[in-house]
Amino acid sequence: MIGLGLIGGSLLRAASAVGREVWAATASEADAAAAGAEGFDASTDVEAALRRAAGQDALVVLAVPLTAIDGVLRQVGSCAPNCLLTDVTSVKSSVLASVRSIAPGTRFVGGHPMAGTAESGWRAGNAALFGGAAWVACVEEDTDLAAWAEVARLALDVGAHVIPLTAKTHDEAVARISHLPHLLAAVLATIGSEGGPVPMALAAGSYTDGTRVASTRPELVRAMTEGNREALLPVLDDALGRLGAMRGSLASTGGLAATINAGHKGAQALAQARELTPAGVRVDLAAPDAREGLRALGERGGRITAIADETAIGEVA
Amino acid sequence: MIGLGLIGGSLLRAASAVGREVWAATASEADAAAAGAEGFDASTDVEAALRRAAGQDALVVLAVPLTAIDGVLRQVGSCAPNCLLTDVTSVKSSVLASVRSIAPGTRFVGGHPMAGTAESGWRAGNAALFGGAAWVACVEEDTDLAAWAEVARLALDVGAHVIPLTAKTHDEAVARISHLPHLLAAVLATIGSEGGPVPMALAAGSYTDGTRVASTRPELVRAMTEGNREALLPVLDDALGRLGAMRGSLASTGGLAATINAGHKGAQALAQARELTPAGVRVDLAAPDAREGLRALGERGGRITAIADETAIGEVA
Repeated sequence: MIGLGLIGGSLLRAASAVGREVWAATASEADAAAAGAEGFDASTDVEAALRRAAGQDALVVLAVPLTAIDGVLRQVGSCAPNCLLTDVTSVKSSVLASVRSIAPGTRFVGGHPMAGTAESGWRAGNAALFGGAAWVACVEEDTDLAAWAEVARLALDVGAHVIPLTAKTHDEAVARISHLPHLLAAVLATIGSEGGPVPMALAAGSYTDGTRVASTRPELVRAMTEGNREALLPVLDDALGRLGAMRGSLASTGGLAATINAGHKGAQALAQARELTPAGVRVDLAAPDAREGLRALGERGGRITAIADETAIGEVA
Repeated sequence: MIGLGLIGGSLLRAASAVGREVWAATASEADAAAAGAEGFDASTDVEAALRRAAGQDALVVLAVPLTAIDGVLRQVGSCAPNCLLTDVTSVKSSVLASVRSIAPGTRFVGGHPMAGTAESGWRAGNAALFGGAAWVACVEEDTDLAAWAEVARLALDVGAHVIPLTAKTHDEAVARISHLPHLLAAVLATIGSEGGPVPMALAAGSYTDGTRVASTRPELVRAMTEGNREALLPVLDDALGRLGAMRGSLASTGGLAATINAGHKGAQALAQARELTPAGVRVDLAAPDAREGLRALGERGGRITAIADETAIGEVA
């Protein structure tokens, strides 16, 4: 584990709790000391940790901020150039491009656990963070499926379910359901607070829900939104178009039915999407079309819930 | 109590629980039967309930949807034309205008408890709904302060704190912290769900928080947003301006720091506004400048927490 913030720290605890051999390195002396004090094998020597991983053919997890990925990849390239490698950052295309450029010999599988809190750092972490969460494990044209299965087993071991997608499909989806929410929350928190003390005194559920993620550390939000510019721009244009049409309708006819009814339908779609029927989909990871089979499952909103005998077992809506 | 939906039903339960004599009427036979089965004095005869209130000089609470207010006010005007009257709807200027036009002889105080859930109807109600909530009780130039104190005592009795504001100040504030959040949630829920099954499969905290109120019954959201058009339009323009500038910045420099940092600062402002210091502010309700004193308290983000001996006792930041 390289990095011991919220995600890395939680994953170290969770993987250790299920009996995996884990060791960690982080640039933060404070985090390494805190993890060490709780009995974990943690140091500040990233290169030593990587060399140890190379020697044992261990899975290396990059749990560093997006802005630190390239620097750590250079260390991977020199200390563990052929290792099993994954990451947990919230944008996948740019990380994939960095790996192909900086550490092309690694067996890399992009990853993104869809779990988090507004808190950050080692002390905010906990072993249960990934229970029931979606964990994207990317499947590209050239993904090594043995490496993919290793990453998927780690996610499954810590209680997540696994969604196989390309980096591009992942990035388009998170622009809608993670990056746009963060930006709307920021705008809402600005407009609410700039109204002075009265709006703050009246703020209740709709405002506190709508602004909750605006408390996230700004550098984390900047990294993920700015790092996903290509997928985010059309989504922002969609939001601007809809808000502009709504504003026009309110000013002219006074009606907001189209906006509000569409939103209500959208909210119901989320509830429906969560009613998955275990359909017993099975993908043989040794089959020649295994990558297509995994991606087709992910693109239908399905997920992998177990891997047994080199077969991924999943469910879809 | 006229109306036994979420708010009326919760208020009937809460007022009864603190020992007040309460009776209710509603146009819904099902709600009247459900309330009656739980031991409450509830019927479908609104006019009889109003005449009884007139006879006992009881406080009449209009807990009907905004779109039903004018019809009920006509019944008030004929059956209880001089009664103590309040309401619990989410827009205050339009209700004030209706009262002045339809039932001008009533001693009216506009009210708005800032409490609710995405649920609605008698069965969704509970006596604890108002505990710790803000409850706006409007103070206009001509407000009868004895009537205001009656409404404030009801709100205090059921666990809320009272915020004295004009209808106009209330409406401007809720445009920012309630109506804009509902419209942004609708747009987000639309954009998320129109992305197909993958965004729905990946949706986590930021999306579920940001879209939660999009599940509210559309007719309720329409009534409050369309009913507050004058105050809402400039707030929508503010949101469009900020989102447009953000979009331009992402497309040109790639930077979102201004948006995200402002949002983070706004989120901190909410947390700070909630750290009120009990300052022991007292407003003598019999003083000639009592209305100004109450409004000044509300406009500073303060609130009334008790009324004793015709003195309102409050706290400010």
